[in-house]
Amino acid sequence: MEDTSGEPLAEGKTKIVYAHPHDTGLVVIRHKDGITAGDGARRNQIAGKGALSGRTTAAVFRLLAREGIPSHYVDSPAPDLMVARRCAMIPLEVVTRRLATGSYLRRNPAASEGERFDPPLVEFFLKDDARHDPLIAVDAIVAQHLATAEEAAAMGQRARAVFLALERAWAAQGVTLVDLKIEFGRDDQGALLLADVIDNDSWRIWPGGERTAMLDKQRYREASVVDASFLASLHDSYAEVAERVERF
Amino acid sequence: MEDTSGEPLAEGKTKIVYAHPHDTGLVVIRHKDGITAGDGARRNQIAGKGALSGRTTAAVFRLLAREGIPSHYVDSPAPDLMVARRCAMIPLEVVTRRLATGSYLRRNPAASEGERFDPPLVEFFLKDDARHDPLIAVDAIVAQHLATAEEAAAMGQRARAVFLALERAWAAQGVTLVDLKIEFGRDDQGALLLADVIDNDSWRIWPGGERTAMLDKQRYREASVVDASFLASLHDSYAEVAERVERF
Repeated sequence: MEDTSGEPLAEGKTKIVYAHPHDTGLVVIRHKDGITAGDGARRNQIAGKGALSGRTTAAVFRLLAREGIPSHYVDSPAPDLMVARRCAMIPLEVVTRRLATGSYLRRNPAASEGERFDPPLVEFFLKDDARHDPLIAVDAIVAQHLATAEEAAAMGQRARAVFLALERAWAAQGVTLVDLKIEFGRDDQGALLLADVIDNDSWRIWPGGERTAMLDKQRYREASVVDASFLASLHDSYAEVAERVERF
Repeated sequence: MEDTSGEPLAEGKTKIVYAHPHDTGLVVIRHKDGITAGDGARRNQIAGKGALSGRTTAAVFRLLAREGIPSHYVDSPAPDLMVARRCAMIPLEVVTRRLATGSYLRRNPAASEGERFDPPLVEFFLKDDARHDPLIAVDAIVAQHLATAEEAAAMGQRARAVFLALERAWAAQGVTLVDLKIEFGRDDQGALLLADVIDNDSWRIWPGGERTAMLDKQRYREASVVDASFLASLHDSYAEVAERVERF
């Protein structure tokens, strides 16, 4: 069992990052039971969500490794724990979209719900809750030294590759992967590495291509009433997703 | 004198576009006396502004032609009139920035006022007043068929070339060109062409590098009181800019 009793290196809304007790090149990530939406305006606890997120993200990173796409993932010694290579995170959300929905429609009035992008399109957003993670141009990423132009191009290419691999895996189960958010870091050699988590909060998935059948965190964002009954049902969605992703 | 008595092809807040009476490959653009800000929330008339904008934009396009940068500009038969090649406009604002200010700072909290970009950075915005001209990713431009990836790259390169040419011309008069908005169209062969106008509403210019000495439309955007005295002073700024640009 990994020792996560030390001081956290970082803590986010859904995870805590600890230094690895025996290897300075690694970290231990503990997935928390929290779920938030609206940049933190809505917050709840779902007992067991951390373990479900951990199982989902581990299974996703193992699939990607089989597909030849490396990430920071090393091991998952317990459902809610992930050992990963230590990265300096790049403060960007890299979003790949196959179908137009959500914020894309609000920003692009000529687009219609469910419009298909082929190839899937990639957008970069600056991680900044106070400004609601604004879209950022590649030139601005470079000007602010968040990433070089070459890194930005590589992130775009890798984001598409990750999306296509997960889209195929979901399609084999009759599920449409609508969009996907990932993050990158740099390892101790400065090399770009897929990092953070990829779990049921990272994507929109529509079984049978039906928006109303959605299994992902969007259910929580859209819920008009978040009571115990809804949270139990949401837990069931997260459990179903973890089980399905483990069959990838 | 051009006949602009026909039906307009298009009318915007600051100009009217007419078919050319003798040549279907040309249009006649009449610059209006209106000035607006806040996506039309603030509106005024400044007698003579149309002629000053026409003189400015004609002098800018003539400078660019001397610098080897083609545009839709053909002739200016009167101060408020421009004959131009007919284009299908691309609904994007292409913004080049040398110094960080304005909306860039609101979207990028880590940037500081007056921070210098070298090379100048380019951002694309979708022309959509109702949504306040949102930033748009190159992938989204392509997905919505607003422009091809090659055209987007060419617009970025040309925007930088236009900026550098105007920056040099202004620097020779001790004025700092801070940022610049331009637009593109396609001619009847489908070739990308610098179009629209480039006038004192298109840039921020700071004499002596001093923000408080600004001569451009930003004065109007920031004015707390827009009365007759302010509008007279604003007219004087536009007149000074037209005279200075004619010395380019």
